[in-house]
Amino acid sequence: ARPRVGYFYTGKSGTQLLTENLQKLYVKDFQSIPVVVSENVSVYDAICTMFLEDVGTMFVVDHNSKLVGVLSRKDLLRASIGKQELTNIPVNIIMTRMPNITMCKKEDLLIDIAQKLIEKQIDALPIVKETENGFEVVGRITKTNITKAFLSLAKDQ
Amino acid sequence: ARPRVGYFYTGKSGTQLLTENLQKLYVKDFQSIPVVVSENVSVYDAICTMFLEDVGTMFVVDHNSKLVGVLSRKDLLRASIGKQELTNIPVNIIMTRMPNITMCKKEDLLIDIAQKLIEKQIDALPIVKETENGFEVVGRITKTNITKAFLSLAKDQ
Repeated sequence: ARPRVGYFYTGKSGTQLLTENLQKLYVKDFQSIPVVVSENVSVYDAICTMFLEDVGTMFVVDHNSKLVGVLSRKDLLRASIGKQELTNIPVNIIMTRMPNITMCKKEDLLIDIAQKLIEKQIDALPIVKETENGFEVVGRITKTNITKAFLSLAKDQ
Repeated sequence: ARPRVGYFYTGKSGTQLLTENLQKLYVKDFQSIPVVVSENVSVYDAICTMFLEDVGTMFVVDHNSKLVGVLSRKDLLRASIGKQELTNIPVNIIMTRMPNITMCKKEDLLIDIAQKLIEKQIDALPIVKETENGFEVVGRITKTNITKAFLSLAKDQ
């Protein structure tokens, strides 16, 4: 028989192999734990939580633990150079609120989330589960997670 | 002759193809324009510049336009909840300073930069050119650029 060294059967091009590898990366495999605050906490307390938890984006929930807003470092920085006393402003005054929140699900493809983060010019998305009285926050996906996924392509495969 | 449909010669596995694609991505092809401020500007003015330019990280330069520090949104937020008047504090009090700055070059591989961003837990690196009296800032590379590179793998190839 002829030697088969250097030949292999796949029926697929390099392009297809790469695309297939990307199509295997899901949100649930790269997600982070979400940090949530109640809509009644002050901007000052939210900033403290952000430093304690060391995150760039926090999610704001109502008394039923359902998503009502998103707080970025940028939102908090904007508020902090204002004239008001930060301990007197509740976060629901300055947060991005429903229905203007871009969300995703655990089963979403990471590549689609990367697209959303770039399109909307945001750093993080809440991962949610729909319930009868709103969206429960079950995770967080950020540009840091995408960067880790990018690294994983070079390492794991 | 036999039909050759579905067969092709490469001598390479899917893993190798993917790794090769990643090894073709360089900092210079995904970089952004850097935003710099002088080391004498106030924290207040730096925050205003950050909002005007809509960036998450700025680089601080001396009177020779050489890199002396890095300012993140986190640094500015920390300063803004302090007791001091923001217009009276120069940025060189609160910035991360040389030699504690992680830098990179235009010719670096993007995958190595992704590794540094994750390891050091930072959002952005200055891209520099070495000169006789220090480092000149010629670009900026961030997790946003890495996210765009991740997307480009799915689109371009």
